[in-house]
Amino acid sequence: MPVLIDIARLATCPPDGGPDDIGEVEDAALVWRDGVIEWVGRRLDLPTRYADEPRQSAEGALVLPGLVDCHTHLCFAGDRADEFTERLRGTPYLEVAKRGGGILKTVRHTRAAREDELLALAQERLDRMIRRGVTTAEVKSGYGLSPEAELKQLRVYRQLAAETGVRLIPTVLAAHAVPPEFAGDRAAYLGVVCGEILPAVAREGLARFSDAFVESGAFTPDEARRVFEVSRQLGLTPKLHADQLSDTGGGALAADVGAISADHLEFVSERSIRAMAAAGTVAVSLPLATLVLDTPPLPAQALREAGVPVAVATDFNPGSAPVCDLPLAMWAACVRQRMTPAQVLRGATTVAARALGIQDEVGSLLPGYAADWIGVDRRSAEAWMYDFAPDAVTQTVVAGDAR
Amino acid sequence: MPVLIDIARLATCPPDGGPDDIGEVEDAALVWRDGVIEWVGRRLDLPTRYADEPRQSAEGALVLPGLVDCHTHLCFAGDRADEFTERLRGTPYLEVAKRGGGILKTVRHTRAAREDELLALAQERLDRMIRRGVTTAEVKSGYGLSPEAELKQLRVYRQLAAETGVRLIPTVLAAHAVPPEFAGDRAAYLGVVCGEILPAVAREGLARFSDAFVESGAFTPDEARRVFEVSRQLGLTPKLHADQLSDTGGGALAADVGAISADHLEFVSERSIRAMAAAGTVAVSLPLATLVLDTPPLPAQALREAGVPVAVATDFNPGSAPVCDLPLAMWAACVRQRMTPAQVLRGATTVAARALGIQDEVGSLLPGYAADWIGVDRRSAEAWMYDFAPDAVTQTVVAGDAR
Repeated sequence: MPVLIDIARLATCPPDGGPDDIGEVEDAALVWRDGVIEWVGRRLDLPTRYADEPRQSAEGALVLPGLVDCHTHLCFAGDRADEFTERLRGTPYLEVAKRGGGILKTVRHTRAAREDELLALAQERLDRMIRRGVTTAEVKSGYGLSPEAELKQLRVYRQLAAETGVRLIPTVLAAHAVPPEFAGDRAAYLGVVCGEILPAVAREGLARFSDAFVESGAFTPDEARRVFEVSRQLGLTPKLHADQLSDTGGGALAADVGAISADHLEFVSERSIRAMAAAGTVAVSLPLATLVLDTPPLPAQALREAGVPVAVATDFNPGSAPVCDLPLAMWAACVRQRMTPAQVLRGATTVAARALGIQDEVGSLLPGYAADWIGVDRRSAEAWMYDFAPDAVTQTVVAGDAR
Repeated sequence: MPVLIDIARLATCPPDGGPDDIGEVEDAALVWRDGVIEWVGRRLDLPTRYADEPRQSAEGALVLPGLVDCHTHLCFAGDRADEFTERLRGTPYLEVAKRGGGILKTVRHTRAAREDELLALAQERLDRMIRRGVTTAEVKSGYGLSPEAELKQLRVYRQLAAETGVRLIPTVLAAHAVPPEFAGDRAAYLGVVCGEILPAVAREGLARFSDAFVESGAFTPDEARRVFEVSRQLGLTPKLHADQLSDTGGGALAADVGAISADHLEFVSERSIRAMAAAGTVAVSLPLATLVLDTPPLPAQALREAGVPVAVATDFNPGSAPVCDLPLAMWAACVRQRMTPAQVLRGATTVAARALGIQDEVGSLLPGYAADWIGVDRRSAEAWMYDFAPDAVTQTVVAGDAR
């Protein structure tokens, strides 16, 4: 039986719209069946076949597509609250890392945690994300950095998706950092990544994407190319942490290896922007990380003018973006990246879905899409971002089920 | 009968502490009677006279002083959501104002609104602030700009305080902008401010402070001096909107006229900082406005090193800071102003109280202070700011009464 809901105002966020096209419909109706949208439009145009169906009402709310958080590091153990304060005091990251902080601190805790402990931690964070309107999330490994521990993280995601019904898109990020047991022998670790971790992940079907962190202190563009070559052969599509702290040509590298997205891009060059535009690479902006790290925002206007779609995600992780709040990232994208409310709404729905290759399944409220939607207690997307309030999202619905 | 509460961890935020001294006490107890704190300290040290009193428990929560929002423009009608988007697109403020936007748009709506309408609007906003942990707020006029409409705003605050029991500290800000009926004759409007508005406000006891907006496009330092001279004679202590968009010597002016605080200070000079330090002027930082307007943060480190206490407030207003969320402003002060969680907690409690001259009454959890406190579902102030979550504040208590 179809579910039919009357809605004061709705935004469809069509996948092929322009940067500000959120497809607003007033006095709307939305119909779904078995978790999939059948019809959406103005109530006046509702087909007569639905005329006798019972109707629910979301008259007071604005209805938007469920939010898509297309860049998170959801599964980890331990926290780094002390480091947050140290860095606010001006201590450089390298010094924090030398004292045993940074990514490798999280690796130690994550390796030491049992799978059920990691599952409970990730579950609690996912619950927070759902309350803030997220219905789909990309989820990375990268705090294991060994075959066993990387697979452990990815299995947590598989179980979490099965238990919650939330769409989780897993990405293997074994090339996140060189683990301590390989310090001084990066080549040997890359051998493990390419020869053991990636093949095992592919064999178990534990990831859709393969990511690498290209930065001085992490991996070089050539090392990433090697990782992506192997990934491609295994059927894992590249994604890239690119140009976050310096211009390493990361945007162009992403375009060149056919990455579906290049993420961060605070220091992306004009040349890389042109390459991304030509290749159709999505730019994933991570404004909470730029706030925490006190780095400049990515050049959203230049990317938009070049025709590169700009997604907005949280980068949720225990170091540079410990806040798992996608609406806050959207607000930060408005004020820091000078994107309009419509642009950030597209950026956290259909464009984010594009960064995951699922823009035909989620991120828009159109027939054939998942019935993933949120109710927002505001008159428009503009009004939501304008007086940004944490309790504005009043309802999160995944595949037709209220959460 | 005293109320006694057991608490896992508490921060007293002593008024005379250093910038990072929040006076943390573990395994604590707090005792109050008739809305006033009688005793606070380690549970082990609880005086025997309380031994037989019934105890409540806040074992799970961190208890902090109720937050003090020391700079808000709470009472206004209408919104400016359209302008938020226009400015994100790069339209300069002056152009927005020419088309009928800006402060004067809010003045039109506020003048047109009845007192009961304004009261309902302000009440709803104050409820949101209370849910986010605010127990004391400074509240400005400045959207009336006529004797009648300025007094209308200030009467709304008086009624709101009476109805809610929340401590509202009113400030008259008649020198916010030149109203349209005086366009081209600033001197005549200042004559009304000094000859009619301020005396009427003082006569009715409707404000404790007198504020002025010194900036090109608003009022000159000399005009502000005149306003403050009259204010002083009427018993209204100066506060100042200073150096927000350019260095007008606002910090030094605030020090010179004996203002209790200078607010904004994004472009404050070294000279002004020295003058403020010498005069004991509090610096009120407004990080949400700098985010919305894309202006640099105030130089918190230079102020701190000079010995100027730095408060944190929302600047809640319908234009440059439409978000009435003091914890979000605190988080923004961490990441944008590179202040530590302890510094922003002091900044939104005892230092904010100092900016209102009530640091001996609120902002600290010490004997003799108001029993205004909040429960936060985190292990420490550091942990609260670290993984900043909108639902971390679980309880707001004003004068011993849960809200």
